[in-house]
Amino acid sequence: MTPDRFAALWRSLAPIGRDAGNGGYLRYSWSAADLAAREWFVEEALDRDLDVETDGNGNLWAWWGSPDDGDAVVTGSHLDSVPHGGAYDGPLGVVSALLAVDLLRERAVTPRRPIGIVVFTEEEGARFGVPCLGSRLLCGAQDPARALELRDRDGIRLADAMTAADQDPAGVGPDPELLGRIGAFVELHVEQGRALADVDRPVGVATAIWPHGRWRLTVTGEGNHAGTTAMDDRHDPMLTAAYAVLAASKEARLRGARATIGRLAVEPNATNAVPASVSAWLDARAAVESTLDDLVAAVGKRVDERALRDGTTATLVPESLTPVVNFDEELRRRIAAVLDDAPVLPTGAGHDAGILAAHVPTAMLFVRNPSGVSHSPAEHASDVDCAAGVGALANVLADLACQ
Amino acid sequence: MTPDRFAALWRSLAPIGRDAGNGGYLRYSWSAADLAAREWFVEEALDRDLDVETDGNGNLWAWWGSPDDGDAVVTGSHLDSVPHGGAYDGPLGVVSALLAVDLLRERAVTPRRPIGIVVFTEEEGARFGVPCLGSRLLCGAQDPARALELRDRDGIRLADAMTAADQDPAGVGPDPELLGRIGAFVELHVEQGRALADVDRPVGVATAIWPHGRWRLTVTGEGNHAGTTAMDDRHDPMLTAAYAVLAASKEARLRGARATIGRLAVEPNATNAVPASVSAWLDARAAVESTLDDLVAAVGKRVDERALRDGTTATLVPESLTPVVNFDEELRRRIAAVLDDAPVLPTGAGHDAGILAAHVPTAMLFVRNPSGVSHSPAEHASDVDCAAGVGALANVLADLACQ
Repeated sequence: MTPDRFAALWRSLAPIGRDAGNGGYLRYSWSAADLAAREWFVEEALDRDLDVETDGNGNLWAWWGSPDDGDAVVTGSHLDSVPHGGAYDGPLGVVSALLAVDLLRERAVTPRRPIGIVVFTEEEGARFGVPCLGSRLLCGAQDPARALELRDRDGIRLADAMTAADQDPAGVGPDPELLGRIGAFVELHVEQGRALADVDRPVGVATAIWPHGRWRLTVTGEGNHAGTTAMDDRHDPMLTAAYAVLAASKEARLRGARATIGRLAVEPNATNAVPASVSAWLDARAAVESTLDDLVAAVGKRVDERALRDGTTATLVPESLTPVVNFDEELRRRIAAVLDDAPVLPTGAGHDAGILAAHVPTAMLFVRNPSGVSHSPAEHASDVDCAAGVGALANVLADLACQ
Repeated sequence: MTPDRFAALWRSLAPIGRDAGNGGYLRYSWSAADLAAREWFVEEALDRDLDVETDGNGNLWAWWGSPDDGDAVVTGSHLDSVPHGGAYDGPLGVVSALLAVDLLRERAVTPRRPIGIVVFTEEEGARFGVPCLGSRLLCGAQDPARALELRDRDGIRLADAMTAADQDPAGVGPDPELLGRIGAFVELHVEQGRALADVDRPVGVATAIWPHGRWRLTVTGEGNHAGTTAMDDRHDPMLTAAYAVLAASKEARLRGARATIGRLAVEPNATNAVPASVSAWLDARAAVESTLDDLVAAVGKRVDERALRDGTTATLVPESLTPVVNFDEELRRRIAAVLDDAPVLPTGAGHDAGILAAHVPTAMLFVRNPSGVSHSPAEHASDVDCAAGVGALANVLADLACQ
């Protein structure tokens, strides 16, 4: 795979959902941009004579060989983005999968197992709040009725967003038959840290995904006039929320863990009004679950103390929680061998591969991201490294599908 | 004026722009709700045989007698609201003005001076960011060309919002002729603190408006992945902004002043992303200008220090600044005498009366608000107190217009 060839297919997807301002992506699931990206995938798959199907949860599947034969080798990723996200997180795995199929055919590889490419929906949870929603629903890790009632920031329910996109919401839910056809899942993804850059290698293999979760902190106070309300008469939820931001950062540092409050909703969010309420979302991750539990408990305790002082009420409720995922050890060893002893590394990011790992042997490949920046327009991987990623993925698929 | 009679007119305005959820008001200037409220005013004025005109800035005027005679006694307030604001802030002054005219006519008062009722546009600055925009433009306290380029949160310019509402933006700017016709301005307003409740009186007279202003704090960092970016590698603007929230509150308390950060804009505002930038609006007020200057300088210094630690850059830029307003002393004494030695009190809130005070003798009446809550659906005044306010305003208008 030459870098130019990678770049050619990459360029055909790149404009879809890209913000003209900062170059970041706005590809929320079931939005017009997402539908255009899905259409792009379907056309590319049909061009390659793959059989395309959409499952009941809206995940797209393109098959080389019949999935009914079972024991399929599946690769792929997602096309949705965080708000103003980077170009590579998700799409790199999809583009690489299509190009890997091209490589295998050029090499006249005849797979003994069906090969599938999947595009999962709502991996980022950027629209409906639950990350890996498409793979969770497929695997029965998310209640379908609750999922359909999830609402985006404009109050639109997932069920209505799916209907508007001609996807019948009645099909949402676990699909053990489809899942049972998968013999192995390998997701290629841009690295979201600098581990590969540090060891100067273009491609690595994942060992594990840190346990991680999202908690919603709701602070309620008393809305009031910013000019006429004496400081002592206030019950200002913004103070409690601001304290929570600083406390989360400090408690994470103390434990070598990670905690972020990157999303806030302030009501009424007016310059001259003491807010009535502030919602803050806490994203927390740690290498082991006991550290994560301890971190969140410490943040909650400090916020409660501060709320008492501010005359506000604070509640911290988990929205999603993903235990540690250790990828299949045999599969990882096999892949590392195929890839000339590729470096192995853990990640703090959740992925659909982490959901599937509970059901089928699963692995992940990472492609070097020199700055380590992700979920930002600055996220980047070179065409040379991306082409190396395609080559690595093709080798892994060939090894697995011909075994 | 009986409480029931006040309540009857009050009820006719109350549903316009009221949110079905929390009962707060969403009456942004030139929005559909604002246009409906303006239409309500025009009809009520015409029902009273008042001559209605709209000035070039979109302020509405209803005249009893010819304004061309000059030396007019003008009362009124505004109908726009902060997001999810209360019912009384603004509308109480307009409804009371209409009912005061009814009272004067029933008493067969024959004014020697024209009496006007004004409805100023965009008093709250909730849509285009500049409070008292209508009165500022009238008085030449706001550059018209800059005003027309002001944008709301959806990026819509004031000029376009006016055009969409059939108000020609070419008319925006100072109107010394109209201003010159006003001999005195008296604005009745719901109190936004608890001073009248504390002295158990329904109506009071304003002495002064505290100097106050709005500053925009912009903190820029580096957007990144919340799961994979080590705490030490972050440049998280949310930390700096959170520190600013706490520092502003503390510095205000130290000085007996007021500081609020009630509005934030986070980019990209995603749960699993370290933000790239955070904007925070600082509202600050103090009894004297030197205290206000000192307060804002102290907040700026502490934020700069914190930004250095967070690896972010912070800028604090004034968006509007209103010096202290001391209302006309002779007018105030006269009004207090008419109102049976009504209590006098300062306020921390800006008002159109504060803008007009630089040009014409101006006074304000306040009506008791038992909880002191304002800019919130909980803002309230009893029908009995509101009726007392109408009676007081009628007495003041009769005294001034017959002098």
